Amino acid sequence: MTELERLRGPEDLRALSPRRLRVLAEEIRAFLVDSVSRTGGHLGPNLGVVELTLAIHRVFSSPRDSVVFDTGHQAYVHKLLTGRQDFADLRRRGGLSGYPSRTESDHDVVENSHASTALSWADGISRARLLAGDTDRHTVAVIGDGALTGGMAWEALNNLADSPDQRLVIVVNDNGWSYSPTVGGLARYLDAVRTDRNYERVLGWGKRTLQGGGRPGRLTYDALHGMKKGLKDVLRPQHGLFEELGLKSIGPVDGHDLDALDAALRSARGYGGPVIVHAVTEKGRGYVPAESDAVDRFHTVGKIHPETGLPVVPSRFGWTSVFADEIVQIARTRSDVVGITAAMPEPVGLAPMAREFPGRVIDVGIAEEHALTSAAGMAFAGLHPVVSLYATFLNRAFDQLLMDVALHRAGVTITLDRAGLTGDDGASHNGMWDLALLRLVPGLRLAAPRDEATLRSALREAVSVSDAPTVVRYPKGALPEPTPALSRTSGLDVLAREAGDGGARVLVVGVGPFAATAAEVAHRLGDQGIGATAVDPCWVIPVPDALVDMAAGFDRVVTIEDGIVTGGFGSALRDRLAESSPEVQVQVHGIAHQFLSHASRAQLEEEMGLRPQDIARETAAAVARRNENASTPGVS
Amino acid sequence: MTELERLRGPEDLRALSPRRLRVLAEEIRAFLVDSVSRTGGHLGPNLGVVELTLAIHRVFSSPRDSVVFDTGHQAYVHKLLTGRQDFADLRRRGGLSGYPSRTESDHDVVENSHASTALSWADGISRARLLAGDTDRHTVAVIGDGALTGGMAWEALNNLADSPDQRLVIVVNDNGWSYSPTVGGLARYLDAVRTDRNYERVLGWGKRTLQGGGRPGRLTYDALHGMKKGLKDVLRPQHGLFEELGLKSIGPVDGHDLDALDAALRSARGYGGPVIVHAVTEKGRGYVPAESDAVDRFHTVGKIHPETGLPVVPSRFGWTSVFADEIVQIARTRSDVVGITAAMPEPVGLAPMAREFPGRVIDVGIAEEHALTSAAGMAFAGLHPVVSLYATFLNRAFDQLLMDVALHRAGVTITLDRAGLTGDDGASHNGMWDLALLRLVPGLRLAAPRDEATLRSALREAVSVSDAPTVVRYPKGALPEPTPALSRTSGLDVLAREAGDGGARVLVVGVGPFAATAAEVAHRLGDQGIGATAVDPCWVIPVPDALVDMAAGFDRVVTIEDGIVTGGFGSALRDRLAESSPEVQVQVHGIAHQFLSHASRAQLEEEMGLRPQDIARETAAAVARRNENASTPGVS
Repeated sequence: MTELERLRGPEDLRALSPRRLRVLAEEIRAFLVDSVSRTGGHLGPNLGVVELTLAIHRVFSSPRDSVVFDTGHQAYVHKLLTGRQDFADLRRRGGLSGYPSRTESDHDVVENSHASTALSWADGISRARLLAGDTDRHTVAVIGDGALTGGMAWEALNNLADSPDQRLVIVVNDNGWSYSPTVGGLARYLDAVRTDRNYERVLGWGKRTLQGGGRPGRLTYDALHGMKKGLKDVLRPQHGLFEELGLKSIGPVDGHDLDALDAALRSARGYGGPVIVHAVTEKGRGYVPAESDAVDRFHTVGKIHPETGLPVVPSRFGWTSVFADEIVQIARTRSDVVGITAAMPEPVGLAPMAREFPGRVIDVGIAEEHALTSAAGMAFAGLHPVVSLYATFLNRAFDQLLMDVALHRAGVTITLDRAGLTGDDGASHNGMWDLALLRLVPGLRLAAPRDEATLRSALREAVSVSDAPTVVRYPKGALPEPTPALSRTSGLDVLAREAGDGGARVLVVGVGPFAATAAEVAHRLGDQGIGATAVDPCWVIPVPDALVDMAAGFDRVVTIEDGIVTGGFGSALRDRLAESSPEVQVQVHGIAHQFLSHASRAQLEEEMGLRPQDIARETAAAVARRNENASTPGVS
Repeated sequence: MTELERLRGPEDLRALSPRRLRVLAEEIRAFLVDSVSRTGGHLGPNLGVVELTLAIHRVFSSPRDSVVFDTGHQAYVHKLLTGRQDFADLRRRGGLSGYPSRTESDHDVVENSHASTALSWADGISRARLLAGDTDRHTVAVIGDGALTGGMAWEALNNLADSPDQRLVIVVNDNGWSYSPTVGGLARYLDAVRTDRNYERVLGWGKRTLQGGGRPGRLTYDALHGMKKGLKDVLRPQHGLFEELGLKSIGPVDGHDLDALDAALRSARGYGGPVIVHAVTEKGRGYVPAESDAVDRFHTVGKIHPETGLPVVPSRFGWTSVFADEIVQIARTRSDVVGITAAMPEPVGLAPMAREFPGRVIDVGIAEEHALTSAAGMAFAGLHPVVSLYATFLNRAFDQLLMDVALHRAGVTITLDRAGLTGDDGASHNGMWDLALLRLVPGLRLAAPRDEATLRSALREAVSVSDAPTVVRYPKGALPEPTPALSRTSGLDVLAREAGDGGARVLVVGVGPFAATAAEVAHRLGDQGIGATAVDPCWVIPVPDALVDMAAGFDRVVTIEDGIVTGGFGSALRDRLAESSPEVQVQVHGIAHQFLSHASRAQLEEEMGLRPQDIARETAAAVARRNENASTPGVS
């Protein structure tokens, strides 16, 4: 039996000898490489926090003490230590979530995978306990250096500095990376602290202190403070960024040195107020392919060969690649076009442009709000910024989009990757709010291309608009086969036209890749003798007048979108038709209005009745009911 | 002719002697007190920036250089100096906006009045100019110490520290106040800098330097840097919060000393990279009633007697006061209820609770994101937080509401003051997005009380929900007369019931105070022989099943809400009825989907056809058209 198999819960960690702990750490690393290479998932971040997580669970008593992980994807080790060692179905329906999950364990607190929130969560938890007079339970927030570039972290630090009695330990997991290398003044500050002339001395502090005879369990902040200069003075220059704000800090400590971590965390626990533990870790630690990767240190992987780190299935040409290619071509002829990314130049496809045009792609850190507002400023000064985000993260900058970009009629283009269902990353990664949300922004125009050609043309059209925000949204993954248009009228691509047998006529409108579904639905209805036309408006917000006009000629309109049904495109078309053609029934298909558990996209689409056969069946039934009613005397 | 009247534009300022400048400053103060006491508006903030604005316009050349005001309400002096001296209709339709406005002047850049955005705007503008190779034009951002507590400011500072060539001057207008005194570690840091033992020496620096023989126009950063220790070292300790981040700074300088400001701004202009000028000012400076006010230093005033500062029309018992009273009563029996405000304890009505229960109202600074997420943390730890905001500011925390509060089913109550049209503060202060936005949050419940009694009961119900977010929204201003219910069924208050003459039957649904409008509409329809019932559901999100059931018994449903018509309550009810009772027509009244210029609420309501007579007329016409169609052969 391995040490890992023997472990029943975090409380068992405290009895382990230093040697057995090191064995356990190596077992966990091997487990992660072996397991994640089979399922895919977040590898680099978890390899970096093995010792850190072990040390936290030795020093603190979860779930009595609360451990909050920022961004959540580095919680695999935490899961292994808290009774969850079956990773076979990681991120698949029925298997473990890729993030903390309250339904999985009492040890999990925060499920949201959006960055920079942990300090606010932790402030709330420890403040509540302090108000209740409970000074015995601690809250531990684990936050990466990258997440500290997000404004929420600053808001929380500013508050914590005013709340000196909270039993709160902030572990800064400083590996120098966000998804890509961390940017900005903060990154340079942390770098300077790390490479300070005292660095070596400081990193080894814990170990040497222990060798001097102290036992970890006996080391408290106060005891150390009794030493000549006090812990803080030993470890950190008198002045520092967090110290200037009024916060205490310890470190930097070597985040892979269990003894040093143990001593630092015990000191922090004993301090009796908010305190930062600055731990220097290495993303991808212990796995050569990750350690030597220059792009993202194996941040997220699909299935890989564990020995080499090479993908089992080579990634196919996807939506992101088309965007990446087209934006470079646009940038070659439009010197006013610049790209903005929130710490993800590779995942959103701006990296090739950054390589060809250094200085014209700006990585603002995990700072979506700043991204949108600085884009408005750039537009004011004559540029056309393209802000590329995952769809789910635009939710973080709604106010800036509304009040800085749209109110000022700024020519800013936003590309939303991973729009619609993403599935395996769970509730907070699905990009399912964007259509309903962006519909609320006056003047904004949004395109949802259905394939490679329409993505390229939509992007070109978007960057040609100089007096309003434009958005181009597309899903995660591989491109579908092209869906050619039979004809094109007033911007509407007709994709299928089925004559039917002269009864009810149905217009099927598909948003983005669901245009292909719409065509398939029309064919299936045609097979049943129902007259059906499938159309792709491509630009779906605002609802095009031409679509409203076209819809007025049908008995029933069926809409299909990969956004929440509540207030989305279908609802918007219904509102328009209610004014002009109230007799036309609008049947809306989309994503259910709820937080979705992790599952595959196909599973979710089936569950929500978004497959062509589901929609065709439901439509045919509705048409039949209507025919029945129409032929029943007394019912109109 | 006064100096102010003689001034044609900011370029004239450069020729003025120090004596004439001081005369001009005093004239401006007198003008502001006289003018704002007649119209109402932002008084304290503008009295604090008279010399600062004069100095900026002397040293920089607007509009060639861009001057960006954070929050915008301190731009009155800027308006006076840039050719806008007719303040008679300030904040009234046709008069000057209370904020910068691009349609008013080329000197105005940012119209958004939400705080903490100026540094991102300025970064975008100066970055764009740098990319274009234009190093001659400067961007000046004026931001208060309070606004620096917002996370966006941190995001921008982090980026600026990495962009050493931008021609950007950040003027920190440090008066120690947000709306109320600024909170947090930052406030204490600035306070420490201000009260540093070098403070007096530093504040007087500009003056003494000048007395030493230098002429302001000749003083550059480089010249000063040639002095023994260099400007930075003279003025600021080696280490400091902004310095640790890698930013240069100058100050603190006395923000009412024109010579000192002049020298500091010229130095900053000559530096050739982003630089902070820390100016210490006094909110309300020069106006005794403001200087001696402990609450907000006359931040915003209605019409006042200029000599005493007392209101001309005493403020009436309003929505805020009812909330303030009820939350105190709740707090007396519910020790788990805590209040959270984002720097506005008085305006949102949490101040009385803070006075009675110190420690149970938390002012987080201008930090709505942190407010929502820390509330989720508090709920996790057993509290029931009540987060009180202006409706327009909740837009800034949509992601936190969605992913931290709602996803985790946190029992958090949000009260939204100033919901709906506010009018005179222009586009970014209208609270018109909340209904459509909050409809997108799964599990969230929202109440819109119509009068005092329903506000009290809605709030009590809201804080009784422990497994979902609840929202209570109400408008700005005085309470309306109570509108008693004729009957109450399944949570629906029936306010009017008109039998009509047996033809079409109309259900009129009013949201919040528009419930009274709904009752009035029903009476007017009844007068015309149209059967009409008026109902107030009070809890409008999600649309109550009982309301959908009730509506199914009518031919036409008319909804009235003070939110955007796009995707709001009426649209939601229409979506529900489309599924169950597609034959019922839904006629939606609300705020037009556009950014609104400043005007009175009454003017806007009239313009949007939201008066009872408008809605009754439109409804009667629709009923008549339907009757006509029904009696025309061949039309069904």
